[in-house]
Amino acid sequence: MGLVHYPVYNKKCERIASATTTVDIHDLSRVARTYGVKRLYVVTPLTDQQRLVGRMLEHWKVGFGAKYNPHRKEALELVTVFSSLEEAVEDVGGAEGEIPLLVATDAARQEERSITYGRTRQILRASHVVLLLFGTAWGLDREILDRADYVLEPIEGVKEYNHLSVRAAAAIILDRLAGGHHQS
Amino acid sequence: MGLVHYPVYNKKCERIASATTTVDIHDLSRVARTYGVKRLYVVTPLTDQQRLVGRMLEHWKVGFGAKYNPHRKEALELVTVFSSLEEAVEDVGGAEGEIPLLVATDAARQEERSITYGRTRQILRASHVVLLLFGTAWGLDREILDRADYVLEPIEGVKEYNHLSVRAAAAIILDRLAGGHHQS
Repeated sequence: MGLVHYPVYNKKCERIASATTTVDIHDLSRVARTYGVKRLYVVTPLTDQQRLVGRMLEHWKVGFGAKYNPHRKEALELVTVFSSLEEAVEDVGGAEGEIPLLVATDAARQEERSITYGRTRQILRASHVVLLLFGTAWGLDREILDRADYVLEPIEGVKEYNHLSVRAAAAIILDRLAGGHHQS
Repeated sequence: MGLVHYPVYNKKCERIASATTTVDIHDLSRVARTYGVKRLYVVTPLTDQQRLVGRMLEHWKVGFGAKYNPHRKEALELVTVFSSLEEAVEDVGGAEGEIPLLVATDAARQEERSITYGRTRQILRASHVVLLLFGTAWGLDREILDRADYVLEPIEGVKEYNHLSVRAAAAIILDRLAGGHHQS
């Protein structure tokens, strides 16, 4: 999984680098750990943000937090910070010996390269390496959506309301893609 | 839905009243709004916490936040604060003309009164009024689990890791119970 802070949109649909949010990293790493995701890439080009995340990871992985709550340590061990999506993709390639398929997520339906949850589950079951990308702020920039191999269909609830937090969206998407109940 | 701050467990398995967390209320209300939940009850007996949540709701519902981000307003309009579960149950009864079934959630499997997601979906489709309870901190106190009509089976990922945030757990559970993809 990748949690992308650049390039993403702000409220005015401008391209920005968003600030990292520790609760996002905690929640997504716990979701990743639950559903057997191998790594969570936090992507930010801002060096102060990289340092902040590094300090937070240090606290929970080797500092006081590691003793205080080993479950957080277990989850946050999946997290690494990279400056760009390119570097994250290269890291996956190096670790897995295979260039990952890039599957982006978006709250809006994309006509091109849209992929269903069912089809994505098939790809995962066939043991393809997938990097699933989540955008912070107002979502992934068009540049990333265009670059992705696929864009996952949006989460649709029962209401015309489509404004979940990235924490809630990532939890639901991982459950749909990797939750055991779909196999029955 | 009910987000319960008392009685819940702390890390040492003692009964406590937990502090409210604004990100929980934001995330759960957005999930509630997405899946057509009618109300989100924030249950806390602590008057300072009730005031804090009240101030936060005021900001987003009628203050600056309502203009800044109307989607949050739309979600937070579902939220009300009550001192006790009893009061929340009474409020549901008054609004719906029916005492709600209490369905508690827990990270551990409960032998007694355990209910599956499929069975709970059937109950909801039959238009029964359900109050779905989520615990903060280390989870709902035994008193509430014993009092509930049912305890929903835990979320199982693919790993022996069972430490999702209440934000992630509520998102997944609502998607399993009310997500449109289960009807296909």
